[in-house]
Amino acid sequence: MPERITLYASQICPYAHRVDITLKESGLEYKRFEIDLFAKPDWYASKINLASKVPAIAYGGPDVEPDSPSPESIKLAESYILQEFIADLVPKLLPSDPVARHKARFFVDTFSTKYTGPWAGALLRGEDPIAALLPAIEALQNLLPAEGYAVGEWSIADAAVTPHLARTMLVLKYDLGAYDEEPGKRLYEILTKDEKFARFRKYFDNVTSREAFKSTWDEEPMRKGFYNHLKNHRSDRLAKFKGSAAAST
Amino acid sequence: MPERITLYASQICPYAHRVDITLKESGLEYKRFEIDLFAKPDWYASKINLASKVPAIAYGGPDVEPDSPSPESIKLAESYILQEFIADLVPKLLPSDPVARHKARFFVDTFSTKYTGPWAGALLRGEDPIAALLPAIEALQNLLPAEGYAVGEWSIADAAVTPHLARTMLVLKYDLGAYDEEPGKRLYEILTKDEKFARFRKYFDNVTSREAFKSTWDEEPMRKGFYNHLKNHRSDRLAKFKGSAAAST
Repeated sequence: MPERITLYASQICPYAHRVDITLKESGLEYKRFEIDLFAKPDWYASKINLASKVPAIAYGGPDVEPDSPSPESIKLAESYILQEFIADLVPKLLPSDPVARHKARFFVDTFSTKYTGPWAGALLRGEDPIAALLPAIEALQNLLPAEGYAVGEWSIADAAVTPHLARTMLVLKYDLGAYDEEPGKRLYEILTKDEKFARFRKYFDNVTSREAFKSTWDEEPMRKGFYNHLKNHRSDRLAKFKGSAAAST
Repeated sequence: MPERITLYASQICPYAHRVDITLKESGLEYKRFEIDLFAKPDWYASKINLASKVPAIAYGGPDVEPDSPSPESIKLAESYILQEFIADLVPKLLPSDPVARHKARFFVDTFSTKYTGPWAGALLRGEDPIAALLPAIEALQNLLPAEGYAVGEWSIADAAVTPHLARTMLVLKYDLGAYDEEPGKRLYEILTKDEKFARFRKYFDNVTSREAFKSTWDEEPMRKGFYNHLKNHRSDRLAKFKGSAAAST
């Protein structure tokens, strides 16, 4: 019988979103507490996660308010291994066959090594988004089976990539990153229309159609959050940018 | 009943060594095939690992020579998830309790994020080895229980860090890295003598005393391998360096 679970997460953070989706898919009951990454409560680092990052889970202990965490709960951190932890509690979240489990983890490993670093380079430092993302998306697409999710049935591997993919598509759609406008728009065109990425698109539709994703995703505040978070990374384009997005912030 | 296993590894590579130790501890039968990283066989990338890295495992299929791999075996890669794969085959390699499993993975995650990058900076690019390593070793030491291994009983978490730790101590002992000699020697003194790192030393003694480590470690060829691998990274020190180590290569 699993213990009480409190998830500390932030809407904008894709790593926290991984765990939120995984908990929803698990069917476990949990409390979710929003941490404002730009104004973290003073108890967060000392009582929940010394690294002061989200996501984190308080596991077990008495029934307390999330903002008054008990010293009796165990504090756990790091998004992907939190997903593995939840799959250890609820085994249906990962296949039981060792080879299939390896495939799931290899999919996540490929994503971690090929996608997140280059995408941060485009998003935050203005590097070419096409050169950054297409090789990663092609690598992921090549690992997908003909139908279904990363290892056929839905698994934590899908929850590991969905939050980043959804944020990427949102950022590209509304031109919110630090990269140049033209290659950003071209990348969005390629990903939404090019026949070469049909399998990726189908996968993206599948993962974002699940209730666990939809119930943890709200596009409009996310768009405003990204605008506010990224505007200082693209000050050279701010005049143009203000015209397209700032009105709604 | 696990299938046939062939491990492709290289003596010098700490990541391959993780899997070699894990397989030894598992009690599974396996073949081990040495890949010369500086002269890889031409079939290796096409038939075993497209990324052309070690370690890799060929799992299942008919009984073939490792240098004539069968297309019927499944090819698996990436060191830590290979360790998880072996622990899925032989569950004693990781505790069954979800919280303890999380602790094991958090220990590996801490090592991966705090140790390997900074140590590569010192080893290959001459950055200050004390600033690179002491925070990582302190972070690992802080996660250790009062006695025993990373999560009490030996687990794949210990196999994940032992190869790097053993190579680090060897490199420091014989002054083989690209970092400056003086801080390298000081770091070795601190790690081998300072009371502050007594728990780390005990841990290092424990992990390197296990049969699975001793049977996969041979100091003298490792020392020569590091000398040959690193000499071009420290050309400014080569004259001095030749005097201390080249005689035995």
